Order: sequence, then C-alpha cells, then structure tokens
Amino acid sequence: MAIDRLKELRERVVNSLPRGVRVKNIDFEGPVLVIYVENPQELAESGDIVKRLAKDLRKRIIIRPDPKSLKPPEEAKEIILQIVPEDAQITSFFFDEENGEVIIEAEKPGVVIGKQGATLREIMKAVGWSPKVMRTPPIRSKTVENIRQFLLSAKEERKEILRRIGERIHRGTIYEEKWVRVTFLGGSREVGRSCYLLQTPESKILIDCGVNVSNIQHSPYLYVPEVQPLDSIDAVVITHAHLDHCGLVPILYKYGYKGPIYMTPPTRDLMVLLQLDFIEVAAREGTPTPYESSYIREALKHTIPLDYGVVTDISPDVRLTFYNAGHILGSAIAHFHIGEGLYNIAFTGDFKFERTRLFDRAETNFPRLEALIMEATYGGSQDFQPTRREAEEKLISIINETLKNGGKVLIPTFAVGRSQEVMIALEEAIRNKKLEEVTVYLDGMIHEATAIHTAYPEYLNASLRDLIFHHGINPFISESFVKVDSASKRQEVIEEESPSIILATSGMLNGGPVMEYFKRLAGDEKNTLIFVGYQAEGTLGRRIQKGWREVPFPSNGKREVVNVNMRIETVDGFSGHSDRKQLMSYVRALSSKPEKVITVHGDENKCVDLASSIYKTYRVETRAPYNLETVRFI
Amino acid sequence: MAIDRLKELRERVVNSLPRGVRVKNIDFEGPVLVIYVENPQELAESGDIVKRLAKDLRKRIIIRPDPKSLKPPEEAKEIILQIVPEDAQITSFFFDEENGEVIIEAEKPGVVIGKQGATLREIMKAVGWSPKVMRTPPIRSKTVENIRQFLLSAKEERKEILRRIGERIHRGTIYEEKWVRVTFLGGSREVGRSCYLLQTPESKILIDCGVNVSNIQHSPYLYVPEVQPLDSIDAVVITHAHLDHCGLVPILYKYGYKGPIYMTPPTRDLMVLLQLDFIEVAAREGTPTPYESSYIREALKHTIPLDYGVVTDISPDVRLTFYNAGHILGSAIAHFHIGEGLYNIAFTGDFKFERTRLFDRAETNFPRLEALIMEATYGGSQDFQPTRREAEEKLISIINETLKNGGKVLIPTFAVGRSQEVMIALEEAIRNKKLEEVTVYLDGMIHEATAIHTAYPEYLNASLRDLIFHHGINPFISESFVKVDSASKRQEVIEEESPSIILATSGMLNGGPVMEYFKRLAGDEKNTLIFVGYQAEGTLGRRIQKGWREVPFPSNGKREVVNVNMRIETVDGFSGHSDRKQLMSYVRALSSKPEKVITVHGDENKCVDLASSIYKTYRVETRAPYNLETVRFI
Ligand SMILES: [Zn+2]
Ligand SMILES: [Zn+2]
Ligand SMILES: [Zn+2]
Ligand SMILES: [Zn+2]
Ligand SMILES: [Zn+2]
Repeated sequence: MAIDRLKELRERVVNSLPRGVRVKNIDFEGPVLVIYVENPQELAESGDIVKRLAKDLRKRIIIRPDPKSLKPPEEAKEIILQIVPEDAQITSFFFDEENGEVIIEAEKPGVVIGKQGATLREIMKAVGWSPKVMRTPPIRSKTVENIRQFLLSAKEERKEILRRIGERIHRGTIYEEKWVRVTFLGGSREVGRSCYLLQTPESKILIDCGVNVSNIQHSPYLYVPEVQPLDSIDAVVITHAHLDHCGLVPILYKYGYKGPIYMTPPTRDLMVLLQLDFIEVAAREGTPTPYESSYIREALKHTIPLDYGVVTDISPDVRLTFYNAGHILGSAIAHFHIGEGLYNIAFTGDFKFERTRLFDRAETNFPRLEALIMEATYGGSQDFQPTRREAEEKLISIINETLKNGGKVLIPTFAVGRSQEVMIALEEAIRNKKLEEVTVYLDGMIHEATAIHTAYPEYLNASLRDLIFHHGINPFISESFVKVDSASKRQEVIEEESPSIILATSGMLNGGPVMEYFKRLAGDEKNTLIFVGYQAEGTLGRRIQKGWREVPFPSNGKREVVNVNMRIETVDGFSGHSDRKQLMSYVRALSSKPEKVITVHGDENKCVDLASSIYKTYRVETRAPYNLETVRFI
Repeated sequence: MAIDRLKELRERVVNSLPRGVRVKNIDFEGPVLVIYVENPQELAESGDIVKRLAKDLRKRIIIRPDPKSLKPPEEAKEIILQIVPEDAQITSFFFDEENGEVIIEAEKPGVVIGKQGATLREIMKAVGWSPKVMRTPPIRSKTVENIRQFLLSAKEERKEILRRIGERIHRGTIYEEKWVRVTFLGGSREVGRSCYLLQTPESKILIDCGVNVSNIQHSPYLYVPEVQPLDSIDAVVITHAHLDHCGLVPILYKYGYKGPIYMTPPTRDLMVLLQLDFIEVAAREGTPTPYESSYIREALKHTIPLDYGVVTDISPDVRLTFYNAGHILGSAIAHFHIGEGLYNIAFTGDFKFERTRLFDRAETNFPRLEALIMEATYGGSQDFQPTRREAEEKLISIINETLKNGGKVLIPTFAVGRSQEVMIALEEAIRNKKLEEVTVYLDGMIHEATAIHTAYPEYLNASLRDLIFHHGINPFISESFVKVDSASKRQEVIEEESPSIILATSGMLNGGPVMEYFKRLAGDEKNTLIFVGYQAEGTLGRRIQKGWREVPFPSNGKREVVNVNMRIETVDGFSGHSDRKQLMSYVRALSSKPEKVITVHGDENKCVDLASSIYKTYRVETRAPYNLETVRFI
C-alpha cells in the first residue's frame, strides 16, 4: 500500500517542482515525506514551491540533498571554514546525516548567514549539506551534547526505525465506521501518572506516560486490553518533561512498544535528564526501579521532535500539532485532528494561562476544537493564586530582610520550571538594585536544566529572547549564579560567613542536596527557608509548613534531631499551573468553543468542581472521568 | 495451580463426608466440583451434608457415581422398567453420561418417585445412575429433542471442553489491584445488538451478544481491543433468547472464542431455535448471513445451563446467579458477585415488572446490589402502557366483534413471548365463554416455541403451573389451537368459510407466513388485523399503523397492489417490557438500593430521560452511556 502511494506521490512531486530540479528518490521517514534532490541548490530560493507542494499533498516535506552529492564531513568542514569569515567564531559543526544538514554553531550566527543568506547559499552549493546556523549556547549542556552524540552513533538503526514508522503511518485506512474515544489510564481524579489513550477504529495514540511521584509502584493502567499489546499503539505523544507525564516512557519499550515518541525538542532533552535522575535517585535510595537506563536510550532512539505549530501525520487518520502550554520549557498542548475534519481534540497537559518570566501564556487559538482534555490542579473554587508580580515582590522582600540580618536563604525547588522562574526574578532584582549583590548558588540538577533552557532560546517568550539577543543580557549566565557541583563546594557554601541565596533540589524536601543545606542551616534563626512550590502530603516540606520544629534525621546509625529555628515562609504564585481563575478564563478565551470539556490532573474534588463550574458557566458538556473509564466523543 | 487446589479440596471433601462414603476422584467440570463416589447411595439420604460441604467450600458440588459402578444403559433400562410400576407410563429414557444421570420421562412422574422417593432410591441402588424424573411434555419439541441428541453425540468433546473451562475458572487470582468496569459494546442509547463487557483485573465477562435487528450489518463493537482476542473472554452470559441479545453468539466461535456460555435451560433451547431461523430467513432473502449453522452447533457444545438462583463461579473472581426477569421463557437478570464481597452488579436484560399470564414479575430481592444496568425500552416520561387486564379486554372485544361479523382475525406476533401470552389469554376467554368456540391457527415457529414452553413448566408462574398440574388444564394443548405446517394447510385456513383467529410470524409484518395471510385477507372489510407488539420504524406494520391502505407486493415479477380494506387495530399492553411506571417502581422495589444505575436498551432520549428521572427521584448516581464507552464502578 505504501509503495503504491509513493509511486503516485513521486509523479505529483516531479510535476510540481521546477524542471531543472533533479529528483532522485522520495521516501517516507517517520511522518515526513523526504525528497532527495541531486541539485537542491536549485530549490534554495523557491521555498514557496515546496510549501505549496506540502499543502497540496497534505504532507510534511523535507528536501534533502541526494547522499551522493554530499561532501564527506571532514572535507565539508574545511570548505565551510574557508567560506565563512573568521569573526563569525564558529565553535562547532554537527553533521546530521539523517537530515542531510550541517548544524553550525557560532558566536555570531549572522556572519555565517551573510547578507540575505548569501553565505549560506554559497555553503550549500559548495558542500551539498543544507546548513543550519545556531548561536553557540552560552552554557554547555552535557545532556544536549550526549543526546546529539548518541543519536549520531545510532543513526543507521534510527534510519531503519523511521522507515518502519513511516510505512506504518501511511498504511492507509480500513474501517468504514468512524468514532473517537479516550480511555483514561492514569492522572484522572488524581495528580500523577498521567496517561490517556486516544482511539479511533484505525489508530491508538498514547498521550503521556507518567509516574505516580508519591508511589512509584502505582503506574498507569497499562495492563488493560485497550493498550495491549503495547506495539498495537501507533504513537506516543508527550506533553512535557515532568516525570508525572513522561517518567514511565521507557517501560513501554521494555514491554514491547517499538513505535515513535513525539515531543518538542526541549522536552526530549529535559525528559532524558529527568528520567536518568529518576532511576539514579531510586537506585541510591534502594527502591527497585521500573526500568534500566538502556530503556531510556531505547526510547530516545524512537523520538521524533516536533516544534510548535508543525502539523504532522502520526497515523492513518490522526494529525498532531503541538502548541505552547506556557508551563515549562517545551511544554505543549497536543492537538489532534482526526479523520480529515471528523473531529478535533486537544490535551492541555499542564498549562499556565498567564505570561511568566520565561514563557508566553498558553495558546488559545486552534483552527478547530471539538473537545478539550484539561488539567485541574488548581480547579477548586477557592484555588486562587497571587499574581506573579505579587509573588515576586513578596519573595524579594523576604530575601532582603534575611540578607540584611546576615542570614542565608534556602529555596527548595524542582530542577525544571520554578528554578528558572525564580532565577530570572532574582537576576532582574539584582540588576535593578531591588536586591543587593548576592551570590545565588544552584545545586542539584538546576544548573544542567538551565543549560538546556539556553540551548532553546526560541522556546522562551519574546521579551526574554529580546533581552538576550538584542540587549546582550542573558540572565541565565549572570555572574550572580554559581554552580555547586561537589560535596566540598557544598560545605564551603554552608560555612562561608557572608549571606547568600541557595536554590537546591528537591522541591519538597524529600531528598536531594537540599537536605544537607537544610540540616546545617535550620538551627540558625538568621536564615530563612522559602517554599515556592506545592508541598505534597507526606513530604518533609509539608510537615515543616505545618509547624514541625524538631526534625529527626538518621546520622551514622543514630538519630540526630535537627531543631528548626530558621524562619519559614511560603510564597505562592510561582506555580507553572493555571489557577482557578486562569483555568476558567482559558475556556472562555478559546478561539473555537469546544462541545465537550474533560477535567483531569487534579484531586477528585478539584476535577469535579472545575467540570461543574465550566458546565454552569459556559453550557458545554463536561466530565470528570475516573481512571479506567472510556469516554466517546463522536 | 488447579492441581494443588484439587489436592487440598480432596482432603477437605473426604474429611467432611461420612466414613462409609468411598470417594474415588474429584474434578472440576465447568464451574462445578464433581465428586465421584463408588457408593453414592450412601449419600442419597444425607443431602444436608453435601449442602453444608458446598457452603463450606463456596463451590457448587455434584455427587456422581463412579463411572465403573454404572450399569450399561440397555441393562439399566430393563432393571428400571422392572422396578417402576407400569401405570407410571414411562415414555422415554435419557442416559446423561456427562452427569451420571438417567432422565426418566413419564406421564405420571409421582409413581416413578414413589413414596418419599423410595422408588428413586431403589433405582439408584440397582443401576448406579442417579435418576431424575420428568413429566412427559404434552407437546413434543423437535428442538429440545435435537439438542439433547446433539449433546449426547458430542459428549466426549464436551467432557474435554468442560474440563478446560473448569481449569480456567479455578486458575486463581493474580492482581492485587481491585476494580470493576463495564464497556458498552452495543445496545446503549439504542435497541438492538445488546452487548456488554464486564471486566475486572482478573476476568472478562461478555453479557449478551445480539444482532441489530433493523440492520444485520451493524454488529456490536466486537473488534475493539477490550474484547480481542475473543478467547481472552472468560465467559459469555446470555440474559434471554431474543435475537437482539443472543443472535450473534455463534460469531464468537467463528472468530476464536472457545469458552462457556451460561444461560438458563429454556434460553438455550429457544436460542438455538431462533438462531437457526435467523440464518434461514437471511439465506431465503439472499442476505449474507454472519455465520453458518455449524457455529450454532459449536456454541451449543459450550453451553452451561444454570437454573434461577444457582450461584456459580464463572471466573476466578466472579460468581454468577440468574434471577427471573419475567420477560420471556427463561429470561434472566444476571447478577454478578465480584471479588468475595467487593462488588455486586446486575444486568436486567429485558424485564417485566408486572405479573403476566406466563411469568412472575421480575425479581427484586438480591442479597447485595451496588450497581444495576437496566433496560429503558419504555423509559420515556410518556411511555405508559395499559395494564395486562385492560389489554386483554380490548383484544377480546375486538375479536368478538370481528367473529360476529363472520370475519377472520390476523395477529402478527413474534414466535417467543407475545404469542404465548396471547394464546393463554384466548384459551382462558374461550374456556370461560367470553369468546365463542373458535379455531386459533398458529403459523410460523409459534407452535415449536410453545412446545419448548411445555418442556419447562418450572419456568412458568405458580398459577399456570397449578392450572397444569393440579387442575389438569394445560392451556397450551387446548384443542382450540391448530398448527399450520404447510403451504396447502395455509391455503385451507385462508379459504375456509368460518371465522377464525390466526397468529403468525413475524410480528412486524416484515416477512414470514403472516405476509401471505395479510395479502389474502386484507381486501375483505369483515376481517381485522390486530397489532399486539411494537412496530419499528421502516416496517410494513408501522406503515399500516400510520394509515397506508395500498400496499405494493412483488408477484411473479409484476407489482401487485393489495388494497387494505380490513379493520386495523392496535392493542397495547401485551409488551414483555416494563413500561415507564414499572421501570421506576422496580428501582424502588429493589431489596438493596444500588449506588449506581445505568440505563441501556432504549432510544437515546428514553435512556437519558429514565436515567435523569431515577437520579431525581431516588438520588442514586445514574448514567446513560454511549456504545464504546467504559464506566468504572469501583
Ligand atoms: Zn508539569
Ligand atoms: Zn503534571
Ligand atoms: Zn528590545
Ligand atoms: Zn427481549
Ligand atoms: Zn431486547
């Protein structure tokens, strides 16, 4: 079936391209139609023709130079270095054979591009590779580099994987009946282990596959027959990198899934970082891990990164598009267009309907939308949060008081999301003299997560990008931030006389380097502990919030009791989740009013409360399903 | 696992039975634990011991003579004929090796039983077989006899099937998690193709598997992954023999199911009768049939008949009990007891909550009941029906008027249910002189269906049984009833001068012998056509109800137009379904108030209306799910 379609497509492609363009081959690669062209430079200036062709065929198209016309990487590198003026300061090359692209990182990307792209075109003509220029990231991320290297080393296997996926996506439809339904496998009437199965007669799409952070043993209901065998799933779609959404993706591969995972590029990188950390922490604590690191790599091999706004076939009758969710770097609302206009359904994942320091507010503009599956973390009728501005003011004032007294400020945070928001707020306050010059220590994975943020500036909001690119101020690399990367450095930080601010993981005081700081700083009433995130029931953070002032710690076999004399504060308003007001406004703001709204990712009463308020306010059908239920949409 | 359990059970059995009883072997056979005893006569008088043992073990137990101790059938027959006095009038023997039973049919069963069962005990001692006495049915049913013969011929295979089923039922539980859910595969927000999947982590139970009578092509959604592969189903449970509940059971075997079907004994026989007719009619009309008759036989091989009130293990964590549903012969409410007290859920199937001529009203007394899945055929707020008494009075008076004018009365009916209700009403009216002596002709499968009724007197209500057994009046064999079994006989009936009543299938004038009567009788205004059942949209019956008076018929290639001059009447109130008032009262009458009520088997607005009224009146959670949805119960 795929072969017939390819033959037919090839004819249409050849007829649509200018006569001079020599098409050597066309093939599906994952969701994309790849056109291998002997002389792609002929097309370099006719971007519109390719766009029109893609629209005609309703396919994503990539023009790639015929492999035979590519110069060997070493030779190409030399040629490029001769073409590009030295003051571009090229720092690295990355030859992506999968895409026939060479990624050139330079301190001054504009110089590599040349006037109206002249230098780029010259490069392409000379080496065959299609050049892609990126600014050398200001902080090197080991994660980003390791992932790049790994994908390069696995490129042959990946080629095969993508071909297989491409064939499967374009297998054609079989059933006459049309219906759409979703089975709720986790994260319904609860927070954690988010997992949903979108089904049509033709397709099975799994959205998210998270861990139950408070109980690793309770995974999503993957053993039910709708999902089994795992390889009957066509595609896995990940909304964002938090572990409650992607922490169990590797077990899919452990138990037989062989298909693709779609996510944004930053989600891919953050996901790998957090998954590796997840099994490391578990191993350190002696808890059995649900998978080994080899399965993280196996999953990585099957990732297909998609930027926001790119419409992509992921099965014979389903098209996926990601939209900004405003929650963390790369977080996405996953929009599914089903059956050529039959139905449109979007899963918000976690989303923030308020502009933050880092991100624009969640997207509301969808071409069509019949159903919305939305989070309800703060869906209760009383769940109002202060604005970000109020939160920041409170934070800065508490810090100022502490520093004035010569104390240290300890802020437990998760590595991804809140850390960076707090960092940006602190940097601006220091820059604007609202906060005295002070060192902000980053411990745990915060520094690495931040590095990943600097690798994806296009995923940050416009004013932050403007600040970085036009005003030369990259708050992430401010000299105020100092990375703590060893036990001895940590001791130094704790013991130094001068006041400081310490951001350390984990965010709920239930493990990680923050514990050591807490033990050593808690006794001194000059110091302050500031909670900026939700403290779950059962965590030390929650107990301290509630008033615990004597905390027992095991220490060399004995029980040491830490007396908490430091000041304890909670600053609400830094959440990456929409509060009640934002949840309600989001539904109103949607460009296309859905017929059905489903609430998930919230405690039982929050999901029910939000569903009922949306029904009453907007008169759309709502549901707050239980895990293991299936809702039909059409 | 099964073997370990058997070993353990064997010890408990041996220790619980009197010392003299020589246990040879114990084994699972389908859901039942069979104890083979060398000298079962030792137990003949200790029924209580066996009952207590069954209660202790929470198992159904059958004591069976060790096969070696059974006399060969021919020899046993001679011995029994010597023991039993001749005036018992034994008419047949049936040696059921599967159960070690000999079924003795006699005109006077009491004589075979003897004083306080003395003759029975004598028989058992002499031949080894356990005697079961039945009254010789007054009308021979070919269906009943054929089924008996078929099961006898397949007995070796059946033994193997039952052993396999038994092992599977007692395989033990695996999962720690507990949940119960139901997927709606057909018959939700519609009438037709009833099919529901009850699931726990351990078990899959399919309840009903019906045809969409108005469109054979729309079967239940059996292709969804919850049900596939079909042999992952543990048990199929059939509520009653109407085709919209059991018409597609044979395709389960065609596509890979190998497990048991549970139903009452009359449902088994009626089901086979109606399925055979279903594919015959389809073949005659040139419609492709969904299965061949070999699959009806295959299904029959896997039937496990259960009487009302018998609690039976059907999977490691599910117990099934059937209760009277009052709808047609053998119709049952299927009650499932799940997980040793975890949850109780009942499916009403079609039910009548009013005492009729044939049946008691549907059972309301369940030991426990948390959820009820109930029909909603007449669930609309206006769906009130006259009482049965009012309906009968109207019917008799219309018939009397017609007969007085010398006309014939034509009543289209379905073979099973309404036909028998009308027959009993007519017979009583004739017996009580409310109706003049008149011949009632039965055409189509009505006579055979009636014969099956006479084979199961214990499934009729107490007053009908009383009439038959104590007063010697079996209305079914009244001389007023005359079977029409040939085309020539049909011509005679049509052409004879004298007035008569004709009951003929099908009930909606959309095929069957009734068509011929209609064509020939319609022109004469002395005749009357009486509808006693629901006429579905699209049928000729419905059109005539609406006022059509010129009906085109194809006749030898030409179109013949039949002018309808006969009187047309509709008598409501003979329905086998509960009307709106009965549906509402049923929920109130339940001995144990359910937490959740789900409405199915009704047009969309009826299901929604009934659900909402039950919620408002009784404040229990209600739902009217769509096909393809899944509802979780715990
Ligand atoms: Zn999140
Ligand atoms: Zn989340
Ligand atoms: Zn600017
Ligand atoms: Zn029925
Ligand atoms: Zn029915």
